[in-house]
Amino acid sequence: MKLYSFFRSSAAYRVRIALALKGLTYEYVPVQIARGLQFEAPYRDISPQALVPILDDDGELLQQSLAIVEYLDETHPEPPLLPASPIERSRVRSLALLIACEIHPLNNLRVLKYLTGTLGLSEEQKLAWYRHWVTTGFTALERRLATESGTGRFCHGDAPGYADIALVPQVANARRFEVDLSAFPTIVRIDAACSALPAFQQAAPARQPDAE
Amino acid sequence: MKLYSFFRSSAAYRVRIALALKGLTYEYVPVQIARGLQFEAPYRDISPQALVPILDDDGELLQQSLAIVEYLDETHPEPPLLPASPIERSRVRSLALLIACEIHPLNNLRVLKYLTGTLGLSEEQKLAWYRHWVTTGFTALERRLATESGTGRFCHGDAPGYADIALVPQVANARRFEVDLSAFPTIVRIDAACSALPAFQQAAPARQPDAE
Repeated sequence: MKLYSFFRSSAAYRVRIALALKGLTYEYVPVQIARGLQFEAPYRDISPQALVPILDDDGELLQQSLAIVEYLDETHPEPPLLPASPIERSRVRSLALLIACEIHPLNNLRVLKYLTGTLGLSEEQKLAWYRHWVTTGFTALERRLATESGTGRFCHGDAPGYADIALVPQVANARRFEVDLSAFPTIVRIDAACSALPAFQQAAPARQPDAE
Repeated sequence: MKLYSFFRSSAAYRVRIALALKGLTYEYVPVQIARGLQFEAPYRDISPQALVPILDDDGELLQQSLAIVEYLDETHPEPPLLPASPIERSRVRSLALLIACEIHPLNNLRVLKYLTGTLGLSEEQKLAWYRHWVTTGFTALERRLATESGTGRFCHGDAPGYADIALVPQVANARRFEVDLSAFPTIVRIDAACSALPAFQQAAPARQPDAE
């Protein structure tokens, strides 16, 4: 397998964690998003959307991080990233989607560029926007994780899985943008539990070959 | 089953389509999002995030539309909303996530309110923002649907499924905001094929009890 990645992309980070949890080896192909190289050949032909990650599994090009993680879980079932029962699976997916649909999309690079470029907003307004959506999303997520009985050492039970894969990159981003996390003790606790594991450590941005 | 819904919410619309495709009956509970009633009791207690939809299945409260659709597909397998093979499942999920993670989150009500409220942008800037993200996302989606061999009468093959469930509400929204769809013939064709089916018709915003 070959992973088209950018060290700082949260979506790529999710897939790196899933690959590491499954113990799968892969070729790391850096795509220099920060320099706009995703818009140029050859990457533009691989990803019409010019987004990372793309997983190349024996010539099949897979996209969208959560769809890739589901694929890895279906094709390499051990250790499982999703629980067995439909209700629990739905809970775990809903936690991941809370992050992937309600926090991350508002804060990715192209959106921030639109705010300061097209809309001419200040750096301060951009940061306030960033923190607003992280805080709104984390408030909901914290409440769920702190009150729902499914939560354990990790987002669901005592083994890391699908929701933790979404959580950890979002916490890393929040820290990079200096979001105050003091109101989110459960999120911080779970992030710490994940970060103690070698799979999460291997997948971290700073450990990637294209890290700056 | 009981569905907490708002007629105009695309996320609720997705779940309504899935329920209709599965032939499941349910109690429709309107939540008046436009009037802010999602922030008040009793809904606030049901949904800490104050978002619709929530599916109540025998006391289990399920959230996040795509997680609910996966749950319905796992608990009521016929007709299937996802194909059988992991590669195809990943394709279908990636199409749905392209819409759910890259278009819809940027254009939902609370984001538009932040633009015109907190940021003080004009109605015109808001509309330009809306159309920009729909057009960016649809350009990528059209290219995929028009070139990938998996596309059939519907997003994947000749039966409606998971990706169509995400597509149709997004097209409805785009039309409501008068986005020019002339560059997206495949999207428009698939939307028309879906709209000819009773399940999609029953789920449409105008057909809901809380439609204005």
